[in-house]
Amino acid sequence: MESIYKKIIENAYTLTKSRKDKGEVATYIPELAYVDPAMFGVHMTKLDGTNFGLGNNLEKFSIQSIAKVLSLTLAYKILGEKIWQRVDVEPSGTKFDSLLLLETYKGIPRNPFVNSGAIVVCDILITHLKNAKQEFLDFIRELSGLPDLTYSDKIADSEKATGYRNVALCNYIKSYGNIKNEPDEVLDFYFDMCSIELSCKELSHTFSFLANGGRTLKDNKKIISKSMTKRINALMLTCGFYDESGEFAFRVGLPGKSGVGGGIVALYPKNYTIAVWSPKLNPNGNSYKGMKLLEEVTTDSELSIF
Amino acid sequence: MESIYKKIIENAYTLTKSRKDKGEVATYIPELAYVDPAMFGVHMTKLDGTNFGLGNNLEKFSIQSIAKVLSLTLAYKILGEKIWQRVDVEPSGTKFDSLLLLETYKGIPRNPFVNSGAIVVCDILITHLKNAKQEFLDFIRELSGLPDLTYSDKIADSEKATGYRNVALCNYIKSYGNIKNEPDEVLDFYFDMCSIELSCKELSHTFSFLANGGRTLKDNKKIISKSMTKRINALMLTCGFYDESGEFAFRVGLPGKSGVGGGIVALYPKNYTIAVWSPKLNPNGNSYKGMKLLEEVTTDSELSIF
Amino acid sequence: MESIYKKIIENAYTLTKSRKDKGEVATYIPELAYVDPAMFGVHMTKLDGTNFGLGNNLEKFSIQSIAKVLSLTLAYKILGEKIWQRVDVEPSGTKFDSLLLLETYKGIPRNPFVNSGAIVVCDILITHLKNAKQEFLDFIRELSGLPDLTYSDKIADSEKATGYRNVALCNYIKSYGNIKNEPDEVLDFYFDMCSIELSCKELSHTFSFLANGGRTLKDNKKIISKSMTKRINALMLTCGFYDESGEFAFRVGLPGKSGVGGGIVALYPKNYTIAVWSPKLNPNGNSYKGMKLLEEVTTDSELSIF
Amino acid sequence: MESIYKKIIENAYTLTKSRKDKGEVATYIPELAYVDPAMFGVHMTKLDGTNFGLGNNLEKFSIQSIAKVLSLTLAYKILGEKIWQRVDVEPSGTKFDSLLLLETYKGIPRNPFVNSGAIVVCDILITHLKNAKQEFLDFIRELSGLPDLTYSDKIADSEKATGYRNVALCNYIKSYGNIKNEPDEVLDFYFDMCSIELSCKELSHTFSFLANGGRTLKDNKKIISKSMTKRINALMLTCGFYDESGEFAFRVGLPGKSGVGGGIVALYPKNYTIAVWSPKLNPNGNSYKGMKLLEEVTTDSELSIF
Repeated sequence: MESIYKKIIENAYTLTKSRKDKGEVATYIPELAYVDPAMFGVHMTKLDGTNFGLGNNLEKFSIQSIAKVLSLTLAYKILGEKIWQRVDVEPSGTKFDSLLLLETYKGIPRNPFVNSGAIVVCDILITHLKNAKQEFLDFIRELSGLPDLTYSDKIADSEKATGYRNVALCNYIKSYGNIKNEPDEVLDFYFDMCSIELSCKELSHTFSFLANGGRTLKDNKKIISKSMTKRINALMLTCGFYDESGEFAFRVGLPGKSGVGGGIVALYPKNYTIAVWSPKLNPNGNSYKGMKLLEEVTTDSELSIF
Repeated sequence: MESIYKKIIENAYTLTKSRKDKGEVATYIPELAYVDPAMFGVHMTKLDGTNFGLGNNLEKFSIQSIAKVLSLTLAYKILGEKIWQRVDVEPSGTKFDSLLLLETYKGIPRNPFVNSGAIVVCDILITHLKNAKQEFLDFIRELSGLPDLTYSDKIADSEKATGYRNVALCNYIKSYGNIKNEPDEVLDFYFDMCSIELSCKELSHTFSFLANGGRTLKDNKKIISKSMTKRINALMLTCGFYDESGEFAFRVGLPGKSGVGGGIVALYPKNYTIAVWSPKLNPNGNSYKGMKLLEEVTTDSELSIF
Repeated sequence: MESIYKKIIENAYTLTKSRKDKGEVATYIPELAYVDPAMFGVHMTKLDGTNFGLGNNLEKFSIQSIAKVLSLTLAYKILGEKIWQRVDVEPSGTKFDSLLLLETYKGIPRNPFVNSGAIVVCDILITHLKNAKQEFLDFIRELSGLPDLTYSDKIADSEKATGYRNVALCNYIKSYGNIKNEPDEVLDFYFDMCSIELSCKELSHTFSFLANGGRTLKDNKKIISKSMTKRINALMLTCGFYDESGEFAFRVGLPGKSGVGGGIVALYPKNYTIAVWSPKLNPNGNSYKGMKLLEEVTTDSELSIF
Repeated sequence: MESIYKKIIENAYTLTKSRKDKGEVATYIPELAYVDPAMFGVHMTKLDGTNFGLGNNLEKFSIQSIAKVLSLTLAYKILGEKIWQRVDVEPSGTKFDSLLLLETYKGIPRNPFVNSGAIVVCDILITHLKNAKQEFLDFIRELSGLPDLTYSDKIADSEKATGYRNVALCNYIKSYGNIKNEPDEVLDFYFDMCSIELSCKELSHTFSFLANGGRTLKDNKKIISKSMTKRINALMLTCGFYDESGEFAFRVGLPGKSGVGGGIVALYPKNYTIAVWSPKLNPNGNSYKGMKLLEEVTTDSELSIF
């Protein structure tokens, strides 16, 4: 990778590492609370195939909600634009687990990245695939180039035991008729889907098709069309960070998605993807240091879409 | 301008002109209801100075909420980042005149482009300028290169006589202490600010500094910093179209701002600005044909930021 | 019973019977949809032990939410005033299955008669009784004087198979920590509790302790204190009819409780209880003809608490 | 008055006087903040004409929202049941100055005792009376038997200067078309209406017609019908204490109305009215000691409607 990019990442990493971490590790999924809060890694993958990382960039972590982009990609690939009859494309303006807007919009989630929307996407995959769990796994294996990737039972079980709010969301949507399968089955898949573990390096590789017009970097295989890619990127920009999406667009200026495991992936179309991991979260549920690092990178490099 | 751009605009214009217009002219500001609903114009200004327009692109119309971007620019220039203590940067997720979120967030508007946010910006300008009305006018005159530009009394008076919801918003925020001047004075300026009239050509020229890193096209004069420019563009993308902002990002993929007069301005950083005008609005208050035309332009040209 | 009361009931019954029934039978619990919509009965029980009924007053129907008053009585008897730490005493102002206020009040239901509040009451009974289902049944058997009374499996199973919204409510409250047992167990009891079937005559007898200062009519046995009785009556008046509680107080002027099976029970302290049944519901979920009949009775007799 | 009633009041007064006052004087109307917070008075008027008071029961105070019952009475007398097309009869379930439900119900206030509802009632009076201010004053003069009673300019002006939230409410309702006159005129009357000052003794006399089936105590003159009286009493019970109405019904069990001046009036139909005054308010805006005293009176005497 060109030394200019390396330098930008090194500077941002060093600067952010020395900052006081004002975040808190998520504890509502018990298993996540065992992670070492000092973990901090970053990895950039450029479309020319070069890549560069620092810190704990090779250590796997639970990507959690970041997986929602991948399940959406698979469902969108299958249903095309008809998918938007089941889930909308607007920012929610409120907390990620809010039920208020589901009431207002009669069971249609505001977007596919709030929990309710991702649960509807899981329902769609169950309806349209023979074995949703296996085929989704195959899909991520292909994108990541990791044939042995699998769900983490420990994480999934931990969330299944405590995820009452997601059970509430799923049954509430079901009461409006916008879940077609049994809530238990849908939730079982949802919790598995969120349990995937990847390192920063693997994550930046996995998402590179979205910076690359819908084609994998490795073998230029078309996953989705250019138009669909553009739309998923737009969705990440407006809805990827819960009720801090505006803030992220404002400070970082890239499409991206965060997870409560402390990971964030972001991308600059036709240019690069970048993944960062630091477990402590700010009050809005996004990695405290991850946000800071990405802000440094785009401010310093002027490599934002705006 | 290169013929490729001209062709794209001609195609989009022709295609959209022939479509059935499913929108409705806004009637809640009586004066706006007198506009010929068949008006339809588009104008693109490239950063190389070339420009090209079609239809009623030289006819003036009431830019309404589009002016909020300009008042924000002036207030941001004066206060810097401290401005965000008075108004947030998040999409609202609800109707543009909603009071619900003002209640939740104790008088801090969600962003500067919902009415409540723009009213707070007017309050800021009154506090920090000797004569806010005159100095704001001078500011737009400079940006547009139109030394005779002035407020439209007819439009402003029409809105003052019927703008009860904005009176409600302003007094409600005042009750939380986030309006510092008298509501009557703030609203008087707000209604004047929204009454500015520009043609598509003038509008695309006026906004070109936001595509140009904060500098005017004509004489490369710095209006605001690159970083501020990036942030205003990010705000337009996430919040520029009321509760259809996600949809616009999704379909068009450009930062932009609409007004109930039927105008929309959008821009591709480092590249071009484009203004379109068609008075009939979709149910979300955005120009029906304007949205369609811009979608054609970016889909056809692949010239979106995503 | 004195002939004046008989006359009032006869008049009200005849008048209401001849009215066009503008209501609709509830269909969201499939089993309820099989009921003959023409059923119409009324029964009054006076504290002197006399009683009088008309129409289908001896036919059993599903009392549904009316049972919430009885489960509250038992839980209140056990916990005393501490119960109000788990559930509030305010009208909800919104639909009976609303999740909005649960979000605002962090899992504390507004009152024990909205579904969420009744579910919390079931949770309390499970915690404090060895066998909540059996002991609640014993309690109603005692109040009603019907030793063979039992849950209706058909009704309960029908609701269990479709009660997704109640599953959502229970899990949502659990996510706030205000359900102590497993949601499945709590809901199982809740659906059974709502499945009780009584006739108008039996219902008016069963509720007579609330008109009688907390003592049974038959043997003057103290069920709860005078003060508790007064408070349960106040709760029925302010919260007994979902978001039509104000309307009922306004038109009828008696404490009461309705159920989606089309039953209503109301009472005049120190005087009488009255039960009415007509399966078709108005848009707020209360028996259309039941409301009308009770309005006639209290307007005609001037026997309201106001 | 019988000694039993005197004793009950004396006991309740003594007990409550010795309690620590956990309330706070309202400060949002500057003029109210000048009141001596130690003021404490109570006065009961029985339908037999006897009456009895203690403490500062002869000192005048600002009755504020209590006047809403009187303006409603006058408007109801004029319009009859048609009035309910303009304002509903349901408890609001939320803060007294909430705008949320106005949005949900399109400008129809939930009941005539929330500020928005009382403002609509003022609008009705302006429409239907030649000189609403004068005729409303005449009406209270008649009810109270105080021919010199007048508005308090000091209080009204103080509230006019700071009542931004009420300005917001009035303009918001106007935007839905449910205010027919100019907001400024309606608010001017509203603030005057709330500025009336009465002592506990005068207040209990003034409200005695509502305990007396709609007829004045002094000369048995019919003010409104029995049915209307019953309905106003029902409204006071369900909606008289903002979002603490359920609590008041639950603890006190009487129809009543409170004001931010620290006054409360309550009544037992066919029996008595009672007024109490203590300026410090609980967090819900109702007199802290006033609530306590009334709870003592009804618990001790068992003289509640339940």
